[in-house]
Amino acid sequence: MNLSDIKRVIIGEPFPNSAEIHERLDKVRALAVFASDPISSNAYATEAIMGILVLLGSGALQMTMTLAIGVALLVVMVIFSYIQTILHYPDGGGAYTVAKDNLGTLPSLIAAGALLTDYVLTVSVSVSAGVRAVTSAFPETNDYRVMMALGAIAIITWLNLRGVRESGTIFAFPTYAFVAGVLVVVVIGLVRHFGLLGVAPLPEHGFEVEAALTPVSQVMYIWLLLRAFSAGCTALTGIEAISNGIQAFKPPESKNAAKTMVAMGFMAMSLFLGISFLSTHLGLIPNEENSVLSQMAGAIVGRGHFLYYWVQFSTMLILFLAANTGFQDFPRLSSFLAKDDFLPRWLQNRGDRLVYSWGIVLLASIASLIVIVFRADEIAMLPLYALGVMLSFTLSQAGMVRLWGKVGRLAKGESAFTGVTTIHHENGWWWKRAVNFTGSLVTGVVFVILVATKFIEGAWIIVLAIPALVLLFHTINRHYNHVAEGLRTHNLKVTDLQSAADVVLVPIADIHRGSLRAIKFARRLSSNIRVITVVTGEKQREHILSRWERFPEVTAGADLVFIEYVYRDILDPLISYIEQVNNEEYPDDMVMVVVPEFIPESPVAGILHNQTARLLHLRLRQYEDIIIIQVPHHL
Amino acid sequence: MNLSDIKRVIIGEPFPNSAEIHERLDKVRALAVFASDPISSNAYATEAIMGILVLLGSGALQMTMTLAIGVALLVVMVIFSYIQTILHYPDGGGAYTVAKDNLGTLPSLIAAGALLTDYVLTVSVSVSAGVRAVTSAFPETNDYRVMMALGAIAIITWLNLRGVRESGTIFAFPTYAFVAGVLVVVVIGLVRHFGLLGVAPLPEHGFEVEAALTPVSQVMYIWLLLRAFSAGCTALTGIEAISNGIQAFKPPESKNAAKTMVAMGFMAMSLFLGISFLSTHLGLIPNEENSVLSQMAGAIVGRGHFLYYWVQFSTMLILFLAANTGFQDFPRLSSFLAKDDFLPRWLQNRGDRLVYSWGIVLLASIASLIVIVFRADEIAMLPLYALGVMLSFTLSQAGMVRLWGKVGRLAKGESAFTGVTTIHHENGWWWKRAVNFTGSLVTGVVFVILVATKFIEGAWIIVLAIPALVLLFHTINRHYNHVAEGLRTHNLKVTDLQSAADVVLVPIADIHRGSLRAIKFARRLSSNIRVITVVTGEKQREHILSRWERFPEVTAGADLVFIEYVYRDILDPLISYIEQVNNEEYPDDMVMVVVPEFIPESPVAGILHNQTARLLHLRLRQYEDIIIIQVPHHL
Repeated sequence: MNLSDIKRVIIGEPFPNSAEIHERLDKVRALAVFASDPISSNAYATEAIMGILVLLGSGALQMTMTLAIGVALLVVMVIFSYIQTILHYPDGGGAYTVAKDNLGTLPSLIAAGALLTDYVLTVSVSVSAGVRAVTSAFPETNDYRVMMALGAIAIITWLNLRGVRESGTIFAFPTYAFVAGVLVVVVIGLVRHFGLLGVAPLPEHGFEVEAALTPVSQVMYIWLLLRAFSAGCTALTGIEAISNGIQAFKPPESKNAAKTMVAMGFMAMSLFLGISFLSTHLGLIPNEENSVLSQMAGAIVGRGHFLYYWVQFSTMLILFLAANTGFQDFPRLSSFLAKDDFLPRWLQNRGDRLVYSWGIVLLASIASLIVIVFRADEIAMLPLYALGVMLSFTLSQAGMVRLWGKVGRLAKGESAFTGVTTIHHENGWWWKRAVNFTGSLVTGVVFVILVATKFIEGAWIIVLAIPALVLLFHTINRHYNHVAEGLRTHNLKVTDLQSAADVVLVPIADIHRGSLRAIKFARRLSSNIRVITVVTGEKQREHILSRWERFPEVTAGADLVFIEYVYRDILDPLISYIEQVNNEEYPDDMVMVVVPEFIPESPVAGILHNQTARLLHLRLRQYEDIIIIQVPHHL
Repeated sequence: MNLSDIKRVIIGEPFPNSAEIHERLDKVRALAVFASDPISSNAYATEAIMGILVLLGSGALQMTMTLAIGVALLVVMVIFSYIQTILHYPDGGGAYTVAKDNLGTLPSLIAAGALLTDYVLTVSVSVSAGVRAVTSAFPETNDYRVMMALGAIAIITWLNLRGVRESGTIFAFPTYAFVAGVLVVVVIGLVRHFGLLGVAPLPEHGFEVEAALTPVSQVMYIWLLLRAFSAGCTALTGIEAISNGIQAFKPPESKNAAKTMVAMGFMAMSLFLGISFLSTHLGLIPNEENSVLSQMAGAIVGRGHFLYYWVQFSTMLILFLAANTGFQDFPRLSSFLAKDDFLPRWLQNRGDRLVYSWGIVLLASIASLIVIVFRADEIAMLPLYALGVMLSFTLSQAGMVRLWGKVGRLAKGESAFTGVTTIHHENGWWWKRAVNFTGSLVTGVVFVILVATKFIEGAWIIVLAIPALVLLFHTINRHYNHVAEGLRTHNLKVTDLQSAADVVLVPIADIHRGSLRAIKFARRLSSNIRVITVVTGEKQREHILSRWERFPEVTAGADLVFIEYVYRDILDPLISYIEQVNNEEYPDDMVMVVVPEFIPESPVAGILHNQTARLLHLRLRQYEDIIIIQVPHHL
């Protein structure tokens, strides 16, 4: 069983190129697939708000609901703004595409860098939160969080390398299971809270109300409220996913996508507001070892109840599914960037199963690293999260504003500079532009708030990472342009192509079957053959010379060059000699070096042999005008 | 500053081959150098005996002195037996050489394997014991033993890679410092013990005498005494070192070496018996955190006393020096074995500083591994130790018995089968033979006792390791013989050497400056040129064809072969095609493959490029009749 067989077993049989056809999704399944990320935010978004408010004292937790409403309003606005993009870019209008078309290269790279950071965090945060759903239910597993998170990433990576179909009905299950489970718990909670149907009322507040509010200054109070609001903005992550995947919908694609987006927003926000309301009224307090969602479900139905386990288990599943969306988005965006020469080209290579294997592996590696560094604590990661997505919202909608401007000029009969996209006349451009302008402005302001309030807690990492990524994109792009220039055939004359000089150098260690075979081959290339060998004494010289003279049919006419050397590293004198021939005797041409190389039967047997030929090969590779000819000798 | 410069700073400037002249040692310095290993055993040998006796109850510790005398007698016998070898092999007569000359290959390999295991353990045990000299004096450093031991190995390795001169006067210091320090302490101890000169008597027994003896059966009692004796045999390690290094002495070499050996034995055994006597009478009890030597010095002169620190510090130094002898012996013996084709040949390559660099690195790696596995606890390693050296004593002396037999037959006028060595007439061969016979017999019996008593505690590792090593030596030897056979030029006809077929294959991905340069070069090799490229669709085919036709001066007469392929891994179809040409069209000849390879400016830039040419190269290397011609293309 060789390596290739092992790969088959793990990854599966390769797919032919023609297999790349997307199965279209109906709205019910599309909702499940695309909504997993934003809906799964409910596992931590409320808790993130409460985690900041509690710094003001447990009494301040009463503010949770107000801030949740603020976040929900922001979501509604972003969704309406994005619907414009969806309707205008039926082929998929991610922030990178929209910014590239309408704002230019730099903004598009900023959007891409921002999104990439967020996709990585989607994986780290979702997996860590998924693991916490398990450790909240079974506290004895708490010590193994990092291991469990890394294991989950490994499994998701493996599934993606095999090629997960986004369309599978199986993917609908976690989303609806989570929505149904949480919804039932929330409804029971509300019924009990308002004392309807004569059921038992909810338990008392968990915290001491007398410890109400820590006295702080007005400025500090507003600052903490802003921080809490920023923390809640993690609920917005994943909303933009639909705009990339419009082609996955059944026709009419754009309309269906837009409707699904509205349904998704409604669903996600109902749960968010429900959870926030009940958490506040139950007087829950954030606790690292028991998530707020787990506390809430426990308080309403009891920790041993079937529904409690249902909520925890479906939370884990939907979070892993959300992590999976990172595995769809990151490799896809990387491949776009690679196609435009902003990332290494191998990121656009599809593997045996037609997935962007290297993008998947790269994402898994970075996400695992983050999980390790943050000890799988998603609450600690949240300050880094949502910044990227907010910046990409801002840029993408700013691009739309620009686009509507062009449409407007076209409507007025002016000549509109169209850039790369074709502009069609469209009714109502004016109000659409206003919607996008508002969206861009508000998300821009929120982005600034996010950066400011989360900066010390970790946002600085993202503030550094995004420009660093943009710089990387530019450097890579410059390199590829430079290479393309070097490989150009435009105006190329054949005489421009360097020729090989009429000399062959054959470095050997001894005269044996392998080196004789190489010398014999060298005769084919030139009549000027120099066999070079390093000797440390007269005895060695005579030994080689006597063997040399035994094979006149092979050696006649060739020169035997002895290099005297008093040290043991024979590579240096060989390289110096070759360099000298190359630079001084034939400065304009390429020089041929025939390397007789003994190839052992197996890598293990290779350990038993001096790797001189290998090392010589490696060092000669650095010269741009040396042709290395490897004449193998096996047994 | 490149890699080579860094190497210069760390290792130093290279020495020319001619620098390899040993500075001869006078007896005082020779004693210091060669005696460090056996003398340093005093740091743990007594403790090893007591560690077993204490299992019988603290009262049994009284037996320590008796067993120490037994060990000392064994040492005396081995020394007298070895002196015969020294006088007979003035060029150096290690067990491997003596066994090879007189007993044959298999016994010599067993001796070599046994010695190699022991040399590795010399390093691990000595370094660990040296670290314990420090941690006994400063208990707060006890948590860092493993780190300290690994650090010590690293420093000794570095010194050896730079090329330590065995002859340095500086090496005499630790040995004499240790001998002097321990001797003074022992003398003070004896004076106080016997109440001479009116000094204060030694403190009372540390243990409770009433807890005297655990009642055990007679058999168990004898068994434990044998175990304790075996444990004490670690005092014998390193005795054989002089027999390898006779050429380092001033003339008359053999005589001086023999005298030095006697002096060494006397010195080592005086200390051993002195320490054993006092440890017994002081009633010391082995304790992992405070070595017996440290306890003894502490009890006699007081833990804060200058002499106490002197003993501890010189103990550490002599143990590190003893570890250093492992770094002299292991690479030397490895190089002998490599020269005889029983170990990889690179073990006989001398590095820039004329030392066996790879042997040094190999030893350091294995010794470090053992230190890690045994948590730098030398007492736990001792059951593995001394077995190898005892087996090599047995074999080496058995070889001498055989040798004296030949000398005897020569004396009687019979024709003596001389084997590889020249036999001279020598007087007194009869009693010399008796000495060696007794030596061989006794060490043989002790070896069996060692294996039996230490088997469960760890000797089984050595019992497995030695045959495994012998098997390895044989396998390596067979491989080299096989290769030598394949490279033989005896009766070689030039027509036996495979020729290259009149066809050149040029795999390319696109037509650009780099691939055109390769095709142009290919024209030089043959008129039958096939440029092969994998295409996945009509568009790609047309693109390549149109560019192909733009350069008729390069492409005219060459065939352009398109391989249609529906998967993305383009290596497979290329290799299949090349394989097919090689096997079916030209089964008897070598086939030339010209690989145009883009060489990026730096390894970092290499990350940005598909490594297809590299991978193709690696896979083609496995074919024994494919000549790979690499035409580089730089920018």
